[in-house]
Amino acid sequence: MVVEDRPLYELSASEIADGIARRRFTPVEIVRACLERIAAREPVVGAWVHLDPDHALAQARALEAGPVRGPLHGIPVGIKDVLDTHDMPTGMGSPIYGGYRPPADASCVAMLRGAGAVILGKTVSAEFAGMTPGKTANPHDPSRTPGGSSSGSAAAVADFMVPLALGTQTGGSVLRPSSYCGIVGFKPSFGAINRAGLKMAAESLDTIGQHARTVEDVALLYGAFTGARKSPGRFTDSPPRVGLCRTFMWDEAAPETKDAVEGAAAAVATAGAEVTEVELPRAFEELMAARIVINNVERARALAFEWHHHRALISETLAEVLEQGLKTPPDDYVDALRLAERLRARIDDAFGACDVLLAPCVNGEAPTGLSWTGDPRLQGIWTALHLPAMSLPTHAGPNGLPVGIQLVGRLHDDHRLLAAGRWVLSLYR
Amino acid sequence: MVVEDRPLYELSASEIADGIARRRFTPVEIVRACLERIAAREPVVGAWVHLDPDHALAQARALEAGPVRGPLHGIPVGIKDVLDTHDMPTGMGSPIYGGYRPPADASCVAMLRGAGAVILGKTVSAEFAGMTPGKTANPHDPSRTPGGSSSGSAAAVADFMVPLALGTQTGGSVLRPSSYCGIVGFKPSFGAINRAGLKMAAESLDTIGQHARTVEDVALLYGAFTGARKSPGRFTDSPPRVGLCRTFMWDEAAPETKDAVEGAAAAVATAGAEVTEVELPRAFEELMAARIVINNVERARALAFEWHHHRALISETLAEVLEQGLKTPPDDYVDALRLAERLRARIDDAFGACDVLLAPCVNGEAPTGLSWTGDPRLQGIWTALHLPAMSLPTHAGPNGLPVGIQLVGRLHDDHRLLAAGRWVLSLYR
Repeated sequence: MVVEDRPLYELSASEIADGIARRRFTPVEIVRACLERIAAREPVVGAWVHLDPDHALAQARALEAGPVRGPLHGIPVGIKDVLDTHDMPTGMGSPIYGGYRPPADASCVAMLRGAGAVILGKTVSAEFAGMTPGKTANPHDPSRTPGGSSSGSAAAVADFMVPLALGTQTGGSVLRPSSYCGIVGFKPSFGAINRAGLKMAAESLDTIGQHARTVEDVALLYGAFTGARKSPGRFTDSPPRVGLCRTFMWDEAAPETKDAVEGAAAAVATAGAEVTEVELPRAFEELMAARIVINNVERARALAFEWHHHRALISETLAEVLEQGLKTPPDDYVDALRLAERLRARIDDAFGACDVLLAPCVNGEAPTGLSWTGDPRLQGIWTALHLPAMSLPTHAGPNGLPVGIQLVGRLHDDHRLLAAGRWVLSLYR
Repeated sequence: MVVEDRPLYELSASEIADGIARRRFTPVEIVRACLERIAAREPVVGAWVHLDPDHALAQARALEAGPVRGPLHGIPVGIKDVLDTHDMPTGMGSPIYGGYRPPADASCVAMLRGAGAVILGKTVSAEFAGMTPGKTANPHDPSRTPGGSSSGSAAAVADFMVPLALGTQTGGSVLRPSSYCGIVGFKPSFGAINRAGLKMAAESLDTIGQHARTVEDVALLYGAFTGARKSPGRFTDSPPRVGLCRTFMWDEAAPETKDAVEGAAAAVATAGAEVTEVELPRAFEELMAARIVINNVERARALAFEWHHHRALISETLAEVLEQGLKTPPDDYVDALRLAERLRARIDDAFGACDVLLAPCVNGEAPTGLSWTGDPRLQGIWTALHLPAMSLPTHAGPNGLPVGIQLVGRLHDDHRLLAAGRWVLSLYR
């Protein structure tokens, strides 16, 4: 089925919501279109770890038979496989959890169902949302990584298998794959999407986030978790004030990363936005190392059971992280927490009068090969600061592959970030 | 078996560790002593929701057959039934989870096993660590509540069924039952005991805590989670500097609560501690209401699945909390988070030169009846500030029942709090 010459699977979530409301098509037709796209493309992309077409269609039929449940009525969503689903296995990207069936949905999954979403299936996660990838390839070039750890969610949305998916970000696991796959990634303020039913990785960093192809869709989905307004606000009187923040890693950045960030700064200035340079105080540079200490120690503690009982099933890469965590002196961990807390209290001042910061998102295009999901540092600093951040698919690198930019908002100022994201992305579409 | 005329079940964890190390008795003898005490007293106290004597003894025998595993080698610990155990059912205090077997141990449970502890059994929790109590009675007077929500853990430790137990505190769920039952309760800094495998209640408040009969035992247990030193430090040069903080609820406080706090202030001053009055800025009074908003909204989100699928199995009391949470405007929740974050950044100044604050812990003795676990407000304000806090069994009320005092430390300054707690409690023993 096509609508205005576009196959249904290409529609955005907002277009699907609108079309279902106007009875131009039904939830079953939408789910069927997504399933057909998956059937055609999954052998190349490998985005899904669990997909039961009959169960997905049954959900859609049940929605058709009942009243409109909420703003996501009939919209398919993919769920990263570290989030519990009561009706699908939840494998955590690890053989240790093969076939595991949780007793309940994660909070975010239950809220999606309450809003009428169809839980289409479970998407590939790197092992325990870490750095050891699963089978997923980059849909733009299957010889390259899609990024991780939310590999399947980003690839599935980028490849039009599903309009929306959930991911999680402890370092850069939502924004990096979104950038590599050329879609919109959104990591809200820490804790904004409730984490009950998430397999914890590093609990003072873990944040549930979203993958979509438009900023409007991000806002639509976000509303299901927070009860907040369903479409991003607009900068009607004047454009957003943008702080250009190159960060400490600028000298190491690939040319295409510099081009993307400086190109975006020029584009928003041309469109009337006030752009100022924002330099983070030196203390923020120490956060790079502190984030790694926190990550290692908290992961080692969170996986204490798996470490004791299933060590042979833990990858070498993860085992090294856990060993680092186990041998970190307790005071180093507390010092790292203290530093992060101090800097979280200071970052608001660094924004000055800016509404959002414009920063590099990834260092270059997606790397070749599927064994490494890329460098998390450019995303991780903002995760550690608990700030909302999003990747926007604005640029391409030397091989024509996506290179996103990153916008960062103030804590709890997620809606302003979404509004700014919409404004910026509109300059490119 | 008795040691120096004391039955084994009366020994502290530190004494057990010492006795096992010197081969005065074995882990099996310790577990057997605890099981015998439980057999005698459980019909009155009702502290346990799952207890399999054979499995407990098997753990002890396995420890005896192997090398010393760690500082808790052979020490029995009770686990609140909202913490996952891979070898015992985990019921969350709710019929919804009857018979549920988690796939893994919670982080804290796995770390206990790694340190050599015997996981004796699961203790009664109020429904989802909230306000609807289970079967447990106060061991000092079975017509009274033991407090909650860590009811079984506090009662079991107070009644010499087990030397140590884990609880969780979202409002006052560790310190209140500890105070009502006349033992030492310890809620460390937010996040200090990793929460992976805890059934989330309100995730920005939930803190795993400890119940013990001595401060030394609290420190011994705490070391297993943090890798930090095993015994509390000492104030050798000079006594701790104590800030007497009556809080905004002083006018409402029962006479025995005022007597306990003022009596303790006088006692520490007599013993040489510098005592200053600390008055919290008025802004902190608003935290009382903000804490409730955060609690309601986060609980409603965390239990979204249970609400949709098992509403008939949710108690009236909890249903009211969830309904309040569901109808809270999103901005009110964010405003409450913002207030809590602002005050967390300010509380350090309120300490001035004090090492710890001395504050009321509970409003009077344990209330009569088993249907209400008592008022969480005096504990909850410090939980919302993420500060480490402990209850010390220093006083008694008009009916001879325990009325504890509360000591509060600065964030991450848990060891100083433990040292101060030992110093203060030594004045009463």
